[in-house]
Amino acid sequence: MENELSKALAESFSMKGGEGPSSYAQNSSIQREKIEAAKMFLQDAIAKKLDPNALSANQICIADLGCSTGTNAFIAVQYIIEAVESQYHSQGLAVPEFQVFFNDLVLNDFNTLFRNLPPERTYFAAGIPGSFYGRLFPNKTLHVVHSSSTLGWISEIPREITNRNSVAYNKGRIHVGDAPKEVVDAYATQYQLDMETFLNARAQELVAGGLMLLQIPCEADAMLDSEISRTKFFELLGSCLADMAKEGIFGEEDLDSFNLPLYFPPLKNLEEILEGNGDFSVEGKEIYPEISLIAPNNVKMGASHCRATLEVLIEKHFGDGIVDDLFQRYVRKVMEFAEVMKVQKFKSLVLFVLLNRKP
Amino acid sequence: MENELSKALAESFSMKGGEGPSSYAQNSSIQREKIEAAKMFLQDAIAKKLDPNALSANQICIADLGCSTGTNAFIAVQYIIEAVESQYHSQGLAVPEFQVFFNDLVLNDFNTLFRNLPPERTYFAAGIPGSFYGRLFPNKTLHVVHSSSTLGWISEIPREITNRNSVAYNKGRIHVGDAPKEVVDAYATQYQLDMETFLNARAQELVAGGLMLLQIPCEADAMLDSEISRTKFFELLGSCLADMAKEGIFGEEDLDSFNLPLYFPPLKNLEEILEGNGDFSVEGKEIYPEISLIAPNNVKMGASHCRATLEVLIEKHFGDGIVDDLFQRYVRKVMEFAEVMKVQKFKSLVLFVLLNRKP
Repeated sequence: MENELSKALAESFSMKGGEGPSSYAQNSSIQREKIEAAKMFLQDAIAKKLDPNALSANQICIADLGCSTGTNAFIAVQYIIEAVESQYHSQGLAVPEFQVFFNDLVLNDFNTLFRNLPPERTYFAAGIPGSFYGRLFPNKTLHVVHSSSTLGWISEIPREITNRNSVAYNKGRIHVGDAPKEVVDAYATQYQLDMETFLNARAQELVAGGLMLLQIPCEADAMLDSEISRTKFFELLGSCLADMAKEGIFGEEDLDSFNLPLYFPPLKNLEEILEGNGDFSVEGKEIYPEISLIAPNNVKMGASHCRATLEVLIEKHFGDGIVDDLFQRYVRKVMEFAEVMKVQKFKSLVLFVLLNRKP
Repeated sequence: MENELSKALAESFSMKGGEGPSSYAQNSSIQREKIEAAKMFLQDAIAKKLDPNALSANQICIADLGCSTGTNAFIAVQYIIEAVESQYHSQGLAVPEFQVFFNDLVLNDFNTLFRNLPPERTYFAAGIPGSFYGRLFPNKTLHVVHSSSTLGWISEIPREITNRNSVAYNKGRIHVGDAPKEVVDAYATQYQLDMETFLNARAQELVAGGLMLLQIPCEADAMLDSEISRTKFFELLGSCLADMAKEGIFGEEDLDSFNLPLYFPPLKNLEEILEGNGDFSVEGKEIYPEISLIAPNNVKMGASHCRATLEVLIEKHFGDGIVDDLFQRYVRKVMEFAEVMKVQKFKSLVLFVLLNRKP
C-alpha cells in the first residue's frame, strides 16, 4: 500500500521538462549554487573516506538521485569523478572505468537529460526511472551515491491532512505555514518514514565502504514557522491560491485538497534520523544557509524557480491556465511582503552530510 | 572521425516516438512475430550455454540493444529472465537479482519507454543512450546481450554514394535496389566495418562465458537483388520519391542526397564476419524467413511499419508535410506491383545466432 501511494505520486509528478524559459533546466541556478558550495565538501569527503584498496572495484558506480534534466547533476558527478580519480592516482593505482546512473521519477524528462549529456564525459551514462523511496539498484553495486536538493520531497501527502474529519485537516492552506501542530506532525511523521525507507534501500545497494553524499534541506531548531523562509515562501503561494479560490477561479475544495509534498525538518530531528540508522556512520557534516527566495533581490528568481519546480504539480491539480496568473500574483505578494518585513532574518539551512556504509 | 560521423547519424535519427497511430510502438507487430519465433531459440540457448557456476555473479546484467520504446524488448527480456531463472533453479542455486539495460540512440523516446515498463517486472531497469557501434558499458559487466531487428542499421551512409564524382554515386535511388555493383559494395564495406566494431565493443563488455543472442536480418545467397523483398520494398519507396521529385514537390538533388542507412548482407558474408571474430564462438544458429512486407495481404501493415521506422529520417531530409503523400503513393504502388508479380517468391531471411564470449 505504501508502495502504491508512493507510485501514485511518482506517476503524477515531475519538474518542468524541456529547455524553454519556464523549464527546470533554465531555472535551477539556486540548486547550482549549492552544488558549487558543495564542491569542497565532496572532494574532501572522497579524499578522506574513499579507499581504492578497500573497494577493489573493477568499475566505480556512481548514482545521482533526483537528477532532473541534468544541468546540476552533471557538474556534481564531474566533481565526484575527479576526486575519485585523484584517490587512485595518489595511490599509484590504475583508474577504473566509471558508470554513472542518473535517477529521477518515471515522469522526469529523461529525453532532455540524455540529449544534454556532456559530450566529453569520461563515464558510461544510464538513466534510472523510479522513486528513490524504494529499491532502484541490485544489491551491493554502488560505490558513491549523491543527492542534492531532493530530499525535501516526501513520497506522499499524509492522508489525515486531506481528511475533513481529522484534527490534522489542512483546510485553506497548502503547506505547514500558519497550520496547527497536527498538520506539522503529520508531515514530520511521513518525512521520518520516507527517510528511513531511503536509508534502508541505499544500505542494500551500496557496497561496504561505499559513500553517500547528501545535501538535505532543513531548518534551524529554534525558529518559529513564521521565521522560516521556505515556510513563508509556500505560505505566500498558498495565500495567492486562496485569493483565487475566493474570486471563484476554482473551488475552495480544490484548495483544501491540495498540499505540497515537501517537508524540511528541524536540523536536530534530521541528525537523529541519520545517526539512528545502524547501516551508516555519519563521517562528516556541514551546515550552510539556504539562499532566501524572498529576499527583495531574489524575488523574481525565486518565483521562476518555484514555478519550474511546482508548475506540473499545480496544473495537474487545478487544471491548465492558472499558472501565469498565480505566479504574477505571487511576485506582487512577495515583493510587498519583502519590503515590509526586511526579510534578511528569514533563513533556511542545508545540511551537507557524508555517510559511510558500514561493513 | 568515424565516431563523429556515427554520432551525426545517431543525433539525427530515431523511430517515431510516442504511442499515436503512426508511432513505432503501435507499428512493430512484425518485429514481435520474430521475437515470438525466437522464444524457443533464446530459451534453448540459455539452457545449453549459460552456466550459473561459471558466471558466479552477484547479479545478472542483461542488455537489450535497439530497444526503441520497449514494446518488443520487454517481451524478449522476460523470456531471457525466465530462462536464466530456470538455470539457477535446476542447479538448486539462489536466483540473483537482475539488472536490465535498455539501449537505443540518444534521440530514442526513452520517456515513453520508461512509462511503459511492465509494472510487475522482477528486474531493475535502466536506459542507456548511445550507438551500439561504440562502447556503452564498462568492461566485463554484461552477462547476456540481446538484439532483435536492429543490426540492419548501419552507422553512417558510405560517403562515395553521395559523391557526384564517385563511380558509386547512387543518383536517383535511395538504396541498393537496381543500383550498380559499386553502390552495393560501398554498403557492404560499411556494414562489415560496423559489425566488427559492434563485436569488438561487446567483447569488452561481456564477461567470459557471457552470451550474445542476436537476430540479424540478411538475404539468401543465390538471390538477385530484384528477387529480395526488402530490396524491392525500398526500391518501390524510392520510385515514389522519384515520382515526387519529377512533379517538383522537392528537388532532384534532395532525392540524390538521400540514402537509407540500412543493409542486409548475404547470409554467407554475415556468417564469415561472425565466425571470423576471435573473441566469440558461434554456438548455435537458425535461419528464419522474414515476413514479406509486399505480399498482398501485408501491404498496409508493411506500409505502416515502414512509415513508423522511416518517418523521422524522411522528414528530417525532405522537410515536413511529404510523409502522408509519400505513403499513400507507396501503398498504391506496392498493391499494383504485388498483384502483378505474385510476390510469394520474394523472401528475406533472419539469422538467429548465439555467440559465446570466449574466456
